Amino acid sequence: MKMSARNMLKGTVENIEEGAVMANVKVKIEAPDIITAVITKEAVKDLNLEKDEKVTVIVKSTEVMVGKEE
Amino acid sequence: MKMSARNMLKGTVENIEEGAVMANVKVKIEAPDIITAVITKEAVKDLNLEKDEKVTVIVKSTEVMVGKEE
Amino acid sequence: MKMSARNMLKGTVENIEEGAVMANVKVKIEAPDIITAVITKEAVKDLNLEKDEKVTVIVKSTEVMVGKEE
Amino acid sequence: MKMSARNMLKGTVENIEEGAVMANVKVKIEAPDIITAVITKEAVKDLNLEKDEKVTVIVKSTEVMVGKEE
Amino acid sequence: MKMSARNMLKGTVENIEEGAVMANVKVKIEAPDIITAVITKEAVKDLNLEKDEKVTVIVKSTEVMVGKEE
Amino acid sequence: MKMSARNMLKGTVENIEEGAVMANVKVKIEAPDIITAVITKEAVKDLNLEKDEKVTVIVKSTEVMVGKEE
Repeated sequence: MKMSARNMLKGTVENIEEGAVMANVKVKIEAPDIITAVITKEAVKDLNLEKDEKVTVIVKSTEVMVGKEE
Repeated sequence: MKMSARNMLKGTVENIEEGAVMANVKVKIEAPDIITAVITKEAVKDLNLEKDEKVTVIVKSTEVMVGKEE
Repeated sequence: MKMSARNMLKGTVENIEEGAVMANVKVKIEAPDIITAVITKEAVKDLNLEKDEKVTVIVKSTEVMVGKEE
Repeated sequence: MKMSARNMLKGTVENIEEGAVMANVKVKIEAPDIITAVITKEAVKDLNLEKDEKVTVIVKSTEVMVGKEE
Repeated sequence: MKMSARNMLKGTVENIEEGAVMANVKVKIEAPDIITAVITKEAVKDLNLEKDEKVTVIVKSTEVMVGKEE
Repeated sequence: MKMSARNMLKGTVENIEEGAVMANVKVKIEAPDIITAVITKEAVKDLNLEKDEKVTVIVKSTEVMVGKEE
């Protein structure tokens, strides 16, 4: 499936921390950058996500902000 | 200011395409990755964003999804 | 690719209205329900979206609100 | 109150799973579709949400993505 | 309808700037604060939004970030 | 750093409720308004957020909805 989401970065699962409902997933996209994704614990199970797996990080472009040093 | 947003990637403005209300800003974060940010045209003016400028791309972690090849 | 996004609904493109940067895409998921997706015009082109095509509407669960009549 | 959010689907609460801060609410909108909403536990209490209640699922159109089989 | 969205601020429409698909709506919530909402032009028409009208600004709490001066 | 996010409101941390992964932060912006931000527990630690601290609440304008009484 091709998606309208404009941002897809390949990376590796670095760490997964689970709560009761949500999970904090760290994905190393390219050293030294790590992306944090907060997704449902249900999705972690459904995708069978584990440390060191190859994943794709997806972000809709309307969710991306830009900052600039003054 | 330090922000709660967990994802901040430094990059360079590659292209800006403006509509009447929104603007599509391409930020090269690390070759060959380019991030697309859709922000208001008003923000482009307020930050005085121009091609080749150093910026930071910011994404709240609840906005990040994860995909995995089956 | 399997995604962490919990909500995927199959439907048909009903209408596409394009602006300079954004596009308003109407997807009929099941009569009489129509979902509105505002995505970049760039994505409409990249996916080669056209009226009457079969698509999947995707929504991350942290973006879904719930309302209840009082 | 009339809202700018373009997507409102009537449905029934199927299940509520609560964590310390967040809650995962399953809403059956039309068999066999179920929408997952991750909202605060505080909202679940404030709306007094319970299984089998009639609710409306609300999604802002800028949060909706579109996927298409290749 | 009572909503799961935790943030609702009453205010007055200060300005509406329309593009082809999106509209930038300025809402004065309490002098001197003005909230910017980017919503579809379609919603502006559907709500018949006009300058000086009383509206409510709604934000889901998972969309709110926090910053702190260092 | 100057940000593309159009909405920044100064306020004071009123309460922090932590779960395993997420935290619900109440920020009083101007009596009687309180903004709810759901951010990662990790961010609460990283910013060293505590009750009564001065913070800035940040919201991207594409995340803001508008409601109007009928």
